[in-house]
Amino acid sequence: MLLTQTTTPEDVKALDRAELPLLCGEIRHAILESSAAVGGHVAPNLGVVELTVALHRVFNSPIDKIVFDVSHQTYAHKALTGRAYTYIDPERFGEASGFANPDESEHDLFAMGHTSTSVSLGCGLAHARDLAGDSYNVITIIGDGSLSGGLAFEGFNNAAELDSNLIIIVNDNDQSIAENHGGLYRNLAELRTSNGTCERNVFRAMGLDYRYLDAGNDVLALVDTLQELRNIDHPIVLHVSTAKGKGFEPAQSDPERWHHVGPFDMATGRKLCPGHPSEPAPRTYADITGEALSAAIERDPQVVGITAATPYIMGFTPELRAAAGKQFVDVGIAEEHAVTFATALARSGAKPVFGVYGTFLQRAYDELWHDLCLNDAPATILVFGASIFGTTSETHLSFFDISMLGGLPNMHYLAPACMEEYLSMLSWSLDHREHPVAIRVPGIGLVSRPDLAPAEDTDYSTVRYNVVRQGRDVAVLALGDFFELGERVANRLTAEYGIEATLVNPRFATELNREFLDSLAAEHRVVVTLEDGILDGGWGERVACYLACTPVRTRTFGIAKGFPDRYDPNELLAQNGMTVENMAAEAVRLLNE
Amino acid sequence: MLLTQTTTPEDVKALDRAELPLLCGEIRHAILESSAAVGGHVAPNLGVVELTVALHRVFNSPIDKIVFDVSHQTYAHKALTGRAYTYIDPERFGEASGFANPDESEHDLFAMGHTSTSVSLGCGLAHARDLAGDSYNVITIIGDGSLSGGLAFEGFNNAAELDSNLIIIVNDNDQSIAENHGGLYRNLAELRTSNGTCERNVFRAMGLDYRYLDAGNDVLALVDTLQELRNIDHPIVLHVSTAKGKGFEPAQSDPERWHHVGPFDMATGRKLCPGHPSEPAPRTYADITGEALSAAIERDPQVVGITAATPYIMGFTPELRAAAGKQFVDVGIAEEHAVTFATALARSGAKPVFGVYGTFLQRAYDELWHDLCLNDAPATILVFGASIFGTTSETHLSFFDISMLGGLPNMHYLAPACMEEYLSMLSWSLDHREHPVAIRVPGIGLVSRPDLAPAEDTDYSTVRYNVVRQGRDVAVLALGDFFELGERVANRLTAEYGIEATLVNPRFATELNREFLDSLAAEHRVVVTLEDGILDGGWGERVACYLACTPVRTRTFGIAKGFPDRYDPNELLAQNGMTVENMAAEAVRLLNE
Repeated sequence: MLLTQTTTPEDVKALDRAELPLLCGEIRHAILESSAAVGGHVAPNLGVVELTVALHRVFNSPIDKIVFDVSHQTYAHKALTGRAYTYIDPERFGEASGFANPDESEHDLFAMGHTSTSVSLGCGLAHARDLAGDSYNVITIIGDGSLSGGLAFEGFNNAAELDSNLIIIVNDNDQSIAENHGGLYRNLAELRTSNGTCERNVFRAMGLDYRYLDAGNDVLALVDTLQELRNIDHPIVLHVSTAKGKGFEPAQSDPERWHHVGPFDMATGRKLCPGHPSEPAPRTYADITGEALSAAIERDPQVVGITAATPYIMGFTPELRAAAGKQFVDVGIAEEHAVTFATALARSGAKPVFGVYGTFLQRAYDELWHDLCLNDAPATILVFGASIFGTTSETHLSFFDISMLGGLPNMHYLAPACMEEYLSMLSWSLDHREHPVAIRVPGIGLVSRPDLAPAEDTDYSTVRYNVVRQGRDVAVLALGDFFELGERVANRLTAEYGIEATLVNPRFATELNREFLDSLAAEHRVVVTLEDGILDGGWGERVACYLACTPVRTRTFGIAKGFPDRYDPNELLAQNGMTVENMAAEAVRLLNE
Repeated sequence: MLLTQTTTPEDVKALDRAELPLLCGEIRHAILESSAAVGGHVAPNLGVVELTVALHRVFNSPIDKIVFDVSHQTYAHKALTGRAYTYIDPERFGEASGFANPDESEHDLFAMGHTSTSVSLGCGLAHARDLAGDSYNVITIIGDGSLSGGLAFEGFNNAAELDSNLIIIVNDNDQSIAENHGGLYRNLAELRTSNGTCERNVFRAMGLDYRYLDAGNDVLALVDTLQELRNIDHPIVLHVSTAKGKGFEPAQSDPERWHHVGPFDMATGRKLCPGHPSEPAPRTYADITGEALSAAIERDPQVVGITAATPYIMGFTPELRAAAGKQFVDVGIAEEHAVTFATALARSGAKPVFGVYGTFLQRAYDELWHDLCLNDAPATILVFGASIFGTTSETHLSFFDISMLGGLPNMHYLAPACMEEYLSMLSWSLDHREHPVAIRVPGIGLVSRPDLAPAEDTDYSTVRYNVVRQGRDVAVLALGDFFELGERVANRLTAEYGIEATLVNPRFATELNREFLDSLAAEHRVVVTLEDGILDGGWGERVACYLACTPVRTRTFGIAKGFPDRYDPNELLAQNGMTVENMAAEAVRLLNE
């Protein structure tokens, strides 16, 4: 096996030229086999095997600097820079991070997982090189899907001002996670079909030199082209056409569903549900969101679903998208546009619902502040994955959302404790015309608790916490999907300590129910807050601050800010003192102080 | 005077065609005269007088929807939609907001002041129109300077997918606030010199129809062109060439310095210092920043100043920029790129310093989180204007910064109390290689207090609050530029109530000095915090939360979150209970409870 002996970029350079296609085949097989076992970004990685081999054949990493945008397509790169074990040794499958990670290798320059950053990073690397009087190559790879993000454009625009070496490789597989959206993609298609010769050329128009290579999965052609570009003295775009999912028929024919997958059967392509290989996947908040929104769209021509290239997170399958017509808009990877677009829709009487992962909503902080909230536009934002039980990669942590949204005026941020409450809030929000509303979709799997969403209590326009159980001495305020964890704390206080604690479902993640908090002091001496997010700027901090000038003692439980990577959520809870035992004991300790 | 009788768009339509140039002249004179008296965005407004008159001649606002990007160039629009008084009646000069404001008029569709939003807003307006089955025109105006912001590109890319009316007017005056930067601008220049006919065309490349008009200050030519575009059935870019500062020689020949000005002498163009017309402007934090950074640049080839189109806020005059050469980079209006670019520079051993207004840094929230902080890149961010004494327009409030940055791991956010401490922190930060550092440049004018920045205490790598005066019972923790306000509270506690309070300069705006806070409890029962920012997610909240499970009572003073507009800072303080008298009285009340 070539791959076991080709562990460094030097090894790639030492191979016979004729061996390169064989190496590519072995890498492809290893990626498939390891992904079948532990899941992964299958389709993106299969597409860039040849490009990656060619890069390490031609350039001299880490002296030459190679930056992969998003970096979820770095499996081949990792295999060739000392980390083949994670793809060929079944005992070590999944051991390396799924993203670039400087802690793993000097060939990974940045930790990253969000899109559209690589050109700006390349500009910085090139400028630093020039300041230091060095002369290495800087190569950045960016996928066509990532081009629609505004940051990428800012990078291209600035790259054109550089008067030194920068090679920007546009890896064009004609596919974002779902299909691409925007006029730019018509230009890419025209460039592909004209073999790069058509008059319209967005890269040339932005002042960049340009070259096209159709054979993006031909390693020898790539080597030859890169060899010619090596040491070029100005910025150039190399536009290569690759096939997403290359070499694995199921992924190549349905790259959207094969963008990122869990374990699957290599022979059939059938996906397996981890732990229960024979059962279908359980229903999710995505499913019920897609169903509820599709029904609303059918009922009301003003309802518009919006996604920034991730329709599946809100349950919008290709079928539901087609059925929704103009009432479902995929803006491509462009969260900023999504929020500003939703602002104008909402101000014009429409009822936009933008569904987005918490981690990607970060891109639109200013648009939330300056467009949506300043204009008090009654749009709905559904924040998915906002939980320590969401993605556990440091690059995609989504539990900073309360801290991020907490400073925005005018917005309600609702945190439902169960699916019934979530659907009730979503339904209310569609018809609410006063303020922007964001909903923190629970991150720990569907929980049915009809008792928490009484049918007569479906107005969320004033901040009112729901007292689920009235007690005394200690009050447990447990936000959103951590309500049940708080319930267990309250139960333990009774069972272990004989304390009948008050148990509250606060429902509002950033606003205080001041009357309720004022009334607490009469019969409570200790308040405990729980939230599925960081403490700094979070909800508990706000509660604690409000009570800090009263005799009530408050202890907040949440996650210390930081970038934990590939953590075990339950271990993270324990590290932050969030075991039921410890939280109950802390309440009792404070009570007895 | 035509202008006094032309108060609505209908009036513009009723004028004889030959009167239109006269109306333009009157509007220009009124803008100049009112701006000379009260200041304003002189150059941008002078450039679009003809365009605005033509828009209201041809289109039927508010049925047709007109959106001005940034909206600091809406003076002519305001004059023609019922608000001429604010430009022609000396008693009412400055009465209307300097930005679009829906509370003033139904012709102002959105409150806005940040750039690059108008195309996305136009897409939303057009989509809402199409959903409702209406047929009005949607017109968005965007300046060339705003084109470099990524959101604008996201908007253009999505606009190309629209299959209905949208007229995007690119108001090209070949000038951002300072000069333009990026490859895009070479294309705009080529388009201007070729009268729109050159092969390279960034708008066509993005899939948009395109038309060029060189005579952007010829009202009749504009009317004719817009008339042809009215009711067009698809998106089109109308690229018009205008002259920034048109009709006022000082502004036309130096549009950077005339972008926004205070009062000036109309005859000579000499700028007046408000209140002291005969004296030169006082020195500012911009001045000392420019001096300190220029010296560092001369000393150390790795220091790089970065601006996103606002070099003057960090004191970089055209002369200092020229002297810095490659060590000063203006990325254009592109805050996202600036942060990601700085990340790569810092990770490559360079020492980037990005100076930015707090309100514009919001654009880069995700890049701060995902690029800078996740990669722990030792860049420096100088946050200017972050104070209630900064810009008082609701669109540009810059005192949300602590709340915004407080959730970011790895970053130190320093809040100096005076100029000596600021310079000490800046100097330390340049050589600090561990973490990203942001510095909250004081917002209330240069304060010299050498006593607060002892020469032996210039290491800010560990969080340590500076106890300026040791007392007991009450501790006053007063952050950054509110230190002196806190000092006055402490002094009043002594003078009025005989309480020798402890007085602390905390220096760190988002991090807790836990040892110090733990030690407080021994001799203090009340802690008062002051900060020049919003309370929600702010610094005081963090302190209060930390102390909430101890017997110490904490009262936080800061600003309630909201969008106050054109407020008086001292009134805002009073509304938030931040008079010296009230803060001292509150401390005493809590002490006696």
